[in-house]
Amino acid sequence: MKKLINDARNLVPEALRGFGKAHRDLVAVHENPTYVTRARPKLLEASGKVALVSGGGSGHEPLHAGFVGYGMLDAACPGQVFTSPTPDQISAAAVAVDDGGGVLFIVKNYAGDVMNFEMAAEELAHRSATVLVQDDVAVESSTYSASRRGVAGTLVVEKILGAAAEAGADLAACAALGERVARACATMGVALTSCTVPAAGKPTFELGENEMELGVGIHGEPGRRRVPTAPADVVVEELLTVIAHDLEPAKGEPLLLVVNGMGGTPLLELYLMYDAAARRLEADGLTIARSLVGNYVTSLEMAGCSLTLARLDDEAIHLWDAPVHTPALRWGS
Amino acid sequence: MKKLINDARNLVPEALRGFGKAHRDLVAVHENPTYVTRARPKLLEASGKVALVSGGGSGHEPLHAGFVGYGMLDAACPGQVFTSPTPDQISAAAVAVDDGGGVLFIVKNYAGDVMNFEMAAEELAHRSATVLVQDDVAVESSTYSASRRGVAGTLVVEKILGAAAEAGADLAACAALGERVARACATMGVALTSCTVPAAGKPTFELGENEMELGVGIHGEPGRRRVPTAPADVVVEELLTVIAHDLEPAKGEPLLLVVNGMGGTPLLELYLMYDAAARRLEADGLTIARSLVGNYVTSLEMAGCSLTLARLDDEAIHLWDAPVHTPALRWGS
Repeated sequence: MKKLINDARNLVPEALRGFGKAHRDLVAVHENPTYVTRARPKLLEASGKVALVSGGGSGHEPLHAGFVGYGMLDAACPGQVFTSPTPDQISAAAVAVDDGGGVLFIVKNYAGDVMNFEMAAEELAHRSATVLVQDDVAVESSTYSASRRGVAGTLVVEKILGAAAEAGADLAACAALGERVARACATMGVALTSCTVPAAGKPTFELGENEMELGVGIHGEPGRRRVPTAPADVVVEELLTVIAHDLEPAKGEPLLLVVNGMGGTPLLELYLMYDAAARRLEADGLTIARSLVGNYVTSLEMAGCSLTLARLDDEAIHLWDAPVHTPALRWGS
Repeated sequence: MKKLINDARNLVPEALRGFGKAHRDLVAVHENPTYVTRARPKLLEASGKVALVSGGGSGHEPLHAGFVGYGMLDAACPGQVFTSPTPDQISAAAVAVDDGGGVLFIVKNYAGDVMNFEMAAEELAHRSATVLVQDDVAVESSTYSASRRGVAGTLVVEKILGAAAEAGADLAACAALGERVARACATMGVALTSCTVPAAGKPTFELGENEMELGVGIHGEPGRRRVPTAPADVVVEELLTVIAHDLEPAKGEPLLLVVNGMGGTPLLELYLMYDAAARRLEADGLTIARSLVGNYVTSLEMAGCSLTLARLDDEAIHLWDAPVHTPALRWGS
């Protein structure tokens, strides 16, 4: 195992310290328990804004801490690598950012995350609601999840809900919108290599020299099929067929296309995958209204990527376009 | 070799097509010859703004095309992977974006790039000047370069010059500022793995299971020493010692610290390297005034990173902070 780390046990706290220093204009990193907030949480006294809190295992950076900031999350709770954050992290973060509007938890559908966010919500003397993201259409249940996994669609939910909360939507409206957006996202990924969890010291799974894992999870969970490596156009065809079968996008309906790198794939290949996906979607008469290409929901240094399609109505497009100022996603003024 | 590509010969044009579609609000991709401009070049008739044109081999994305946009480059000329762009690409780009203020070429110091940019400048019936970037302090000359290589400092030069050109600095002033900023940058990198050029089909170099290359170039050129893998703090110490010996930063002087991923290293490790570098610099009484962490000047899927220190005077800080709206770097309104 080759990693730019000191001691695997301190990887997450040391990285978070660096993250906090590098982005001190945008975020603040709290220790014991560990959570990340905006640099200036609760800028207004009891503004009534709904506070968005997410989190999950580390190793998927920039998700979630990289999405803390104006127009997106109020707080993120990073666990150890591929390990759920504890309820005390989550409740401390919620208390720190609730500004009178209640707390909306955005949770990827993994058993540990679901349980720990539930425990935090139960303990909390604050109003809260939860949006569960389960956009991975590859498999119906998996190593760490009953029913579908939450993957790259999470960032779409976080971006759109972040804009809605900023615009003054209340807790019930944010929760309803979150459910709608989460259901409007479908994702499937492919891995060319495994990743290595530092504390484990060896690859999570083994792939042959000429094999890839279609439908892989973001922790290296098994996908649908292990197949011989194939040209990008073939991979895109496989992924989009499953995604479109699930999502059933209509011709002319505005779609968001996310090409998300798993961490170890060059940007050159991600843009090539975007080109291949755009060609295929256009050939089917579908309309890509918005795009995002990059490493956003990663699996350490895994080579591979996922494609996400999201059906956006006018409200969702407006909220997607709204300003966002976070370490990893930034646009608008 | 595992890559998300179709045919290695078409990787760059297909990826550029995807890049152009994904960022059609910001850039336009031109073919035959290949270059990238802002979506709306020459917005004003003969605004007199100096046009900034850069380029080089592909495989270092987002450099350079990802830095085309308001506040940074006017055009970028991508060659094949790790191969210089041709003079006709460069001169076509220059003609397309010269808006009456002349053209400033920003060139990384590799023999092919230097020669082809010179040929383009000579053929061009436009006023032009060239800034040569050679910030890599690892070695005095290398596989493709006489004297030092140009690496991650290039993005610092492009960002600061982009802001100066936007603010109305003329060609001579931009060229002088560019020389000053280029000399104020010092970079050194480390590789944990090689990368594989798709057309070659095998790793550029071989590293043992427990080896790393200190001072590696962004095409996998040899560095200073091949050494056993070591903790991040030790790697940072090695890199910063060489950088500080070259740059001689003064106590209290504002510095920019860039932790640049080579493409295959998780963000978690890059932030950990940032933390280690910040601790070391602070212990030496040095002041990190600005920071950037991410994959900006990459070497395909190479694992590793580089550290760049840049000495910033007040003018340079002001220009670094100025708004930039490009696919890969975006801040300010």
